[in-house]
Amino acid sequence: MATAPLVSDAQASPEVRAVFDDIRATRGSDFVNNFWRVLAADPGTLKRTWEEVKAVMGAPGALDPLTREMLYIAVSTTNGCSYCVHSHTAAARAKGMTNAQYGELLAVVGLAARTNQLAQALQVPVDDAFEV
Amino acid sequence: MATAPLVSDAQASPEVRAVFDDIRATRGSDFVNNFWRVLAADPGTLKRTWEEVKAVMGAPGALDPLTREMLYIAVSTTNGCSYCVHSHTAAARAKGMTNAQYGELLAVVGLAARTNQLAQALQVPVDDAFEV
Amino acid sequence: MATAPLVSDAQASPEVRAVFDDIRATRGSDFVNNFWRVLAADPGTLKRTWEEVKAVMGAPGALDPLTREMLYIAVSTTNGCSYCVHSHTAAARAKGMTNAQYGELLAVVGLAARTNQLAQALQVPVDDAFEV
Amino acid sequence: MATAPLVSDAQASPEVRAVFDDIRATRGSDFVNNFWRVLAADPGTLKRTWEEVKAVMGAPGALDPLTREMLYIAVSTTNGCSYCVHSHTAAARAKGMTNAQYGELLAVVGLAARTNQLAQALQVPVDDAFEV
Amino acid sequence: MATAPLVSDAQASPEVRAVFDDIRATRGSDFVNNFWRVLAADPGTLKRTWEEVKAVMGAPGALDPLTREMLYIAVSTTNGCSYCVHSHTAAARAKGMTNAQYGELLAVVGLAARTNQLAQALQVPVDDAFEV
Amino acid sequence: MATAPLVSDAQASPEVRAVFDDIRATRGSDFVNNFWRVLAADPGTLKRTWEEVKAVMGAPGALDPLTREMLYIAVSTTNGCSYCVHSHTAAARAKGMTNAQYGELLAVVGLAARTNQLAQALQVPVDDAFEV
Repeated sequence: MATAPLVSDAQASPEVRAVFDDIRATRGSDFVNNFWRVLAADPGTLKRTWEEVKAVMGAPGALDPLTREMLYIAVSTTNGCSYCVHSHTAAARAKGMTNAQYGELLAVVGLAARTNQLAQALQVPVDDAFEV
Repeated sequence: MATAPLVSDAQASPEVRAVFDDIRATRGSDFVNNFWRVLAADPGTLKRTWEEVKAVMGAPGALDPLTREMLYIAVSTTNGCSYCVHSHTAAARAKGMTNAQYGELLAVVGLAARTNQLAQALQVPVDDAFEV
Repeated sequence: MATAPLVSDAQASPEVRAVFDDIRATRGSDFVNNFWRVLAADPGTLKRTWEEVKAVMGAPGALDPLTREMLYIAVSTTNGCSYCVHSHTAAARAKGMTNAQYGELLAVVGLAARTNQLAQALQVPVDDAFEV
Repeated sequence: MATAPLVSDAQASPEVRAVFDDIRATRGSDFVNNFWRVLAADPGTLKRTWEEVKAVMGAPGALDPLTREMLYIAVSTTNGCSYCVHSHTAAARAKGMTNAQYGELLAVVGLAARTNQLAQALQVPVDDAFEV
Repeated sequence: MATAPLVSDAQASPEVRAVFDDIRATRGSDFVNNFWRVLAADPGTLKRTWEEVKAVMGAPGALDPLTREMLYIAVSTTNGCSYCVHSHTAAARAKGMTNAQYGELLAVVGLAARTNQLAQALQVPVDDAFEV
Repeated sequence: MATAPLVSDAQASPEVRAVFDDIRATRGSDFVNNFWRVLAADPGTLKRTWEEVKAVMGAPGALDPLTREMLYIAVSTTNGCSYCVHSHTAAARAKGMTNAQYGELLAVVGLAARTNQLAQALQVPVDDAFEV
């Protein structure tokens, strides 16, 4: 259960409906996932968040869309956000992530968590060589 | 300061020295960074960790080396590991990360942290569509 | 499921029962939520934790009760504690949190998570101006 | 040290300079803190982040500016972001946070971290009463 | 639901089956828990992870097996990993953890989370006396 | 630098001084570390926190003092609390932690972080066998 109600299409205010419509048009799909339906509890945050997602994840750039999704999975996993892990793993697969790529992603994020922990436990001082 | 002493080459036991030598040979550089010098306090963990790093980060595979480094940065940043952020940002640059790629990495990890937080605050239920 | 059994009123030892009674008297409600029923597995921690909650959340002071609950939500969300997000969002609503206030809370905690992430990624040095 | 160079006024591109100018105008102060100077490494993220900060922290609304800053401190502390803790504690004091308010903020965020940890350790099931 | 399918014994490749068999032989039990069945999606990570678990948790050493499990619970709780909290609390009980020991574990991890939070909020400088 | 001033003995109010005196008497040492000197900014939180530390860490019980310190290190490391890692590693050494024990502690906390991350990435469902 969420801490705020899911907003259906029928319940959506015009401001919320405009965001839902843009999600549909941008993705070329009728599906609006629960994140946006709950976030609609605060239309201003809904709109700002969607605009940011569209700008950051959708615009052409130096990183391909699948790499961006895998970075999203890495952060969401580290934060322990169950919803986000599910939605972005699904998105990465929809963008072509293979089982081999997913396996290597798992290996890297597991290793990083382990060495992060060791570096924190040991309070390793930053090498001069890493200075900008 | 670290919570354990940094082990210099002169202080290294043969077991530790063998790992240091393999780090140098693998990287083609004489530089052994502080992480390994402090971790040398526990030779078994040193060896297991280095073997894992070599296997996960160095082997040819489905993800290119720069993508792996960027995933490492994403996890290290989310865990707030200062040492790891420094060392892996330096490593990513050494592997060719451009300013444009770094900028997009920052944008994605910032966005992911934000939507992770929103999904946690709202306790959004996972959509059936995301089921495997 | 919890990792320890929920303690019902009938199962409560006198020491546990005294805490449950104080929870009821303090809140003016017969409802004792699951957190206390599971925590009753360790009566000493139950008692110390409840005393602390009563002292920190209930005493008159410089912050009003709703502000305290919203701070609690902010921490619980960042820690990804599902139970705590649910219970303190319910508590904040019971103390009068409006939809507008909740919306702004969401916007602030989402923004904070994002800029925290950016500051960690960039390892921004603290300005002299922020020194006490 | 940061993982990207601090951008001085002299080095700022017109796009970056426009954001710096808006920060100064909005705050009525000539001071541009390091966060923005390092973030300037990626002008797009700089601009989007500043627009979001201005919208979320500066607009009139249902939460007063000091409450917003205290929520920011709560999140930043939980994320262990040293820079953010420093900058937002300074900001809260500039907005009038008293020692008594700060003391209560500390007490609440410390308590929340403790009960979050207990609820996670015990995996307490969410009460039906907390359902929306 | 998991983000990858659970691999049954019948579905297991020879490489995966060999790990499952070693888990069974090492533990003296026919039970292979879900963690390994999902991780089998990536046989390389499955094998490396199991080898590490066997080496770190199973070998005789300076810490007894129960202490290691309790440390595992402490980390898993702090990371908010529900699966890990469940599996390692069960493992600790199987290794003899008493209710009294569990109660004290809860008290310590709750206290640590609280003082961690306070130290982060206050950005307490490290005392010279703690230097190695 | 801290976000609040360090309180010297000369500056301590009678309420703060009483806590400092009890720290000294309890530990049999004249040294009062910075955590308490900064926390003295809020005498109520100082007193409640010290009472809790004394009760949880100092009382005889089912876990020996060194095990409690190692659990404290595990939580502090996972939270990335630099001050806490330093102070509790020093405390564990003062209570007799050997290099071998410290090495195994590092190995366990590193492994736990890694498998926590994998379990979160894969969203592994809890086995029925782990139910209480």
